[in-house]
Amino acid sequence: MQLLTGFHAIEEALKRGQVRGYLRVSGTGPRIKRILELADKIGLRVEKAKSGDLDAAAPDNRGIVLTLEGDSRPANDADLDEFLEKLSKPEALVLLLDHVTDPHNYGAILRSADVLGADLVVVPERRSAHDTDTVARASAGAVAWVPVAVVPNLVRALTALQENGFWGYAADMAGIEIGQAKLPERTAIVLGSEGYGVSRLLKETCDGSVSIPQRGNVESLNVSVAAGIVMWEYRRRYAG
Amino acid sequence: MQLLTGFHAIEEALKRGQVRGYLRVSGTGPRIKRILELADKIGLRVEKAKSGDLDAAAPDNRGIVLTLEGDSRPANDADLDEFLEKLSKPEALVLLLDHVTDPHNYGAILRSADVLGADLVVVPERRSAHDTDTVARASAGAVAWVPVAVVPNLVRALTALQENGFWGYAADMAGIEIGQAKLPERTAIVLGSEGYGVSRLLKETCDGSVSIPQRGNVESLNVSVAAGIVMWEYRRRYAG
Repeated sequence: MQLLTGFHAIEEALKRGQVRGYLRVSGTGPRIKRILELADKIGLRVEKAKSGDLDAAAPDNRGIVLTLEGDSRPANDADLDEFLEKLSKPEALVLLLDHVTDPHNYGAILRSADVLGADLVVVPERRSAHDTDTVARASAGAVAWVPVAVVPNLVRALTALQENGFWGYAADMAGIEIGQAKLPERTAIVLGSEGYGVSRLLKETCDGSVSIPQRGNVESLNVSVAAGIVMWEYRRRYAG
Repeated sequence: MQLLTGFHAIEEALKRGQVRGYLRVSGTGPRIKRILELADKIGLRVEKAKSGDLDAAAPDNRGIVLTLEGDSRPANDADLDEFLEKLSKPEALVLLLDHVTDPHNYGAILRSADVLGADLVVVPERRSAHDTDTVARASAGAVAWVPVAVVPNLVRALTALQENGFWGYAADMAGIEIGQAKLPERTAIVLGSEGYGVSRLLKETCDGSVSIPQRGNVESLNVSVAAGIVMWEYRRRYAG
């Protein structure tokens, strides 16, 4: 079971359809009205609720809660092998997130991945973000759209990508400036956590590394901003 | 008076020096130790405190609180006229933030402005972000470094910039793709809020508008990611 409370997150889940669950509503307003219209369109069950009951279930709610039943794995669950098998176009952008555990950052990266058209996001089973509702909110609902492959081992995932024509680049201060980098058609970018960077073995498995020049006083860009710039640099070259 | 609780924010404030205030400490650990060493270096007053007292004053604290006394305006306060008078180099990047009221977004933009080398950030007195501690944390301390001019009127500020050789561009979905835009040496970018975009009059005052192509299902990039990409696009052209 999984609870969604963000207006955006609920809307995107309903727009995508295939929702197993129900809505509970205690509030009113234009956003809630729009959600109820969407629910009506896909025939989703809607229950009136007391705001106290909703608050007890999901303290962050703003008058409406979507409960997703059954398998709590996200609808956008992707399988890396299947992705590679089906991939026929020459251009593709894949992001690998190494230890990005903050749900706000993870959600923001998914949002950018949707808008900037990343084809797949790969995260490890361990040490990735888990707070699904915060992720859904921070992603503005993109969590329902961006294919995410959860893998046991990022090094093996990167190797599988490389065997299928991808070049892997670690985002790393010591890398060549991404504006100058020749990103190939099939590019996989590995982003590390803000504290730790990209793990050593993963970096060694990469074909190279790219950097965003830093000129300020603070240590680095936020990882979701860095991810946005990296995806933009790919997209600038391959408008797709 | 102003309270800072983030390790990063406190460190950056102390590194910058010129601190009028005092530290209260209830915790221990390597980050706190480093802050105490910095405080010692600049002769800042340090008081032991009970964790309950700190929690009452600043619920977010992690064992250390910096109280800034007197004028609560930030140390990085800049004056637009003075900035323009002193500006001698041909290249300069200025960001104008129209209704960016979310302190996380505002802080993240300041962090990117520091790392990517924006020369000035201009915000309106009204409808801008106010929660100073959240801003400081989200900025990873960059709030202490990036010059910020608080102005009564963004249209007048933009006009003053234009009179000093700046070209103003609104970030707007209908604009030309920023990868293709010819950004001049002196560029001022106006970023609107996520909900409302750039105000009409401000957009009309601009010399043009630029966009980041959107290809996804969700509505748009997060404003701090968009700001990062826009600043990066300027920086890619003018390594400065």
